[in-house]
Amino acid sequence: MSAEHHTSAAPALTPVTVLGLGNMGTALAAAFLERGHPTTVWNRSHEKTKALAERGARVAATPEEAVTAAELVIACVLDNDALHTVLDPVADRLADRTLVNVTSGSPEQAREFTTWADGHGVAYLDGAIMTTPLGVGHPDMMFLYSGSEAAFTAHKQALEVLGEPLYLGTDSGAASLYDAALLGLMWSTFTGWLHGTALVGADGGAATDFTALANRWLSGAVGGFLTRYSGQVDEGRYPGDDATVDVQIATIDHLIHAAADRGVDNALPELLKATMEQAKALGHGGDSYASVIEVLRGRGGAKAAR
Amino acid sequence: MSAEHHTSAAPALTPVTVLGLGNMGTALAAAFLERGHPTTVWNRSHEKTKALAERGARVAATPEEAVTAAELVIACVLDNDALHTVLDPVADRLADRTLVNVTSGSPEQAREFTTWADGHGVAYLDGAIMTTPLGVGHPDMMFLYSGSEAAFTAHKQALEVLGEPLYLGTDSGAASLYDAALLGLMWSTFTGWLHGTALVGADGGAATDFTALANRWLSGAVGGFLTRYSGQVDEGRYPGDDATVDVQIATIDHLIHAAADRGVDNALPELLKATMEQAKALGHGGDSYASVIEVLRGRGGAKAAR
Repeated sequence: MSAEHHTSAAPALTPVTVLGLGNMGTALAAAFLERGHPTTVWNRSHEKTKALAERGARVAATPEEAVTAAELVIACVLDNDALHTVLDPVADRLADRTLVNVTSGSPEQAREFTTWADGHGVAYLDGAIMTTPLGVGHPDMMFLYSGSEAAFTAHKQALEVLGEPLYLGTDSGAASLYDAALLGLMWSTFTGWLHGTALVGADGGAATDFTALANRWLSGAVGGFLTRYSGQVDEGRYPGDDATVDVQIATIDHLIHAAADRGVDNALPELLKATMEQAKALGHGGDSYASVIEVLRGRGGAKAAR
Repeated sequence: MSAEHHTSAAPALTPVTVLGLGNMGTALAAAFLERGHPTTVWNRSHEKTKALAERGARVAATPEEAVTAAELVIACVLDNDALHTVLDPVADRLADRTLVNVTSGSPEQAREFTTWADGHGVAYLDGAIMTTPLGVGHPDMMFLYSGSEAAFTAHKQALEVLGEPLYLGTDSGAASLYDAALLGLMWSTFTGWLHGTALVGADGGAATDFTALANRWLSGAVGGFLTRYSGQVDEGRYPGDDATVDVQIATIDHLIHAAADRGVDNALPELLKATMEQAKALGHGGDSYASVIEVLRGRGGAKAAR
């Protein structure tokens, strides 16, 4: 994987600092080391630096030493309060550098950190890592960034070491908002898939067999619907065409009955049916499933109007 | 699309009969006609046969005429009771033919129809169409079949006209059970996606932008988890590795808070969190999300044991 970066007479690779060596921070530092970036690491407890030092990392003794070792500083600590504890005393030494903050937090915390960074002359990018530590370094994994566009452009090549860097715009809150939204989609999909797996399994079907079809279904027909429906959401019109909310309400009873007959918990499909019925009550029975967003928006509907 | 079937000196194409000309039955007949199959159609009301007759379909005046016109008879009517009303009087004329029943119904109804077919010397395949009428004829759409393997093998080539035929085994109930399970996955995914779309939209993010990432997320990282977790389900062991139920419970609060702040309805993530907490209460806090199936199986757990 790294060969293409080593064969040409490449310019010197960007030095990088990684603050915080939990499982994820360690994976980030390891990816930079593997690809030949001069890498400095710092962690509150020294113990976690040892394995990385053996792989060539320079270990900073203090946060000040860490943030002055590289122009690109990546922070991956417990939470944003912990990051303030580390960085507030050395904020002035971060001036003219780029801080990429992949610490988990809210959009509001990302925006607050942007104000903090602006006040200290620091270029700020907020980030969200859409994989586990094991996925770091795989070029098809998504890394979301939002905030300073100049910082993203300047460091995109270095960030490609971690996965595919995707820039979501100058609102630094976007990366963590997208993160939450994509994880919500993941948990919904996981749980719907497990419900189906339990249903098929009740009659002896193997999870692996069902899942091969489930993945084709998601990336094919379901993905096609999401793409089509996303245009409807942006337009605020939900033509039902050949798949209306009324049809889905009628069809979900097949699922609920089959699951009930097999003792499979129906809390999820019952909630989905109730949500569809709320859409119908709002007048969307003849519209597409995309109209269900009018139920979910709740009080936020007006704010979301464009 | 049909060129490859017409250029070679092809053998005569299998004659087909389609019973029932709702939107879906009409789409099935139209696909066979387009690919050059001699196609006979029958519908309770004659009106719906006209457009197909203009495209070359032979119109049967009675069910008896319809079922004797072809060795491959495809039924797509309102429900299985309606199909019995049509076929019971002419059951003996179906002997030695293949009945492919894509009428919506339960696994139990499919098994009952198998017994009926066996009693009349009819080869029976139950089917489920995993697309809308607009998707019929596209080779990447999934058509599920279960029941007589000999019938599937004999008619696979003709069934490829409709989409990709996938055979799920000799239990004729499998197609409709998989159908229900895959639709449940679809509705869960749709609703989780709409929740994320509403969340991102509350801060001005476009649905189309979010959805481009959502589809990559589903077919990439999420699909990878489903594949890995399906093996865990079949083995009945759920090693947590780098993503445990405990971690997901902690993380979903970010989503719930961000959505609540924006007035987005949280019924779905609250249910997902409660389900995760049930898994934790069963002792699966350190296990992977696949362990949530132990909650969903409910009373069916013992039956599903393999």
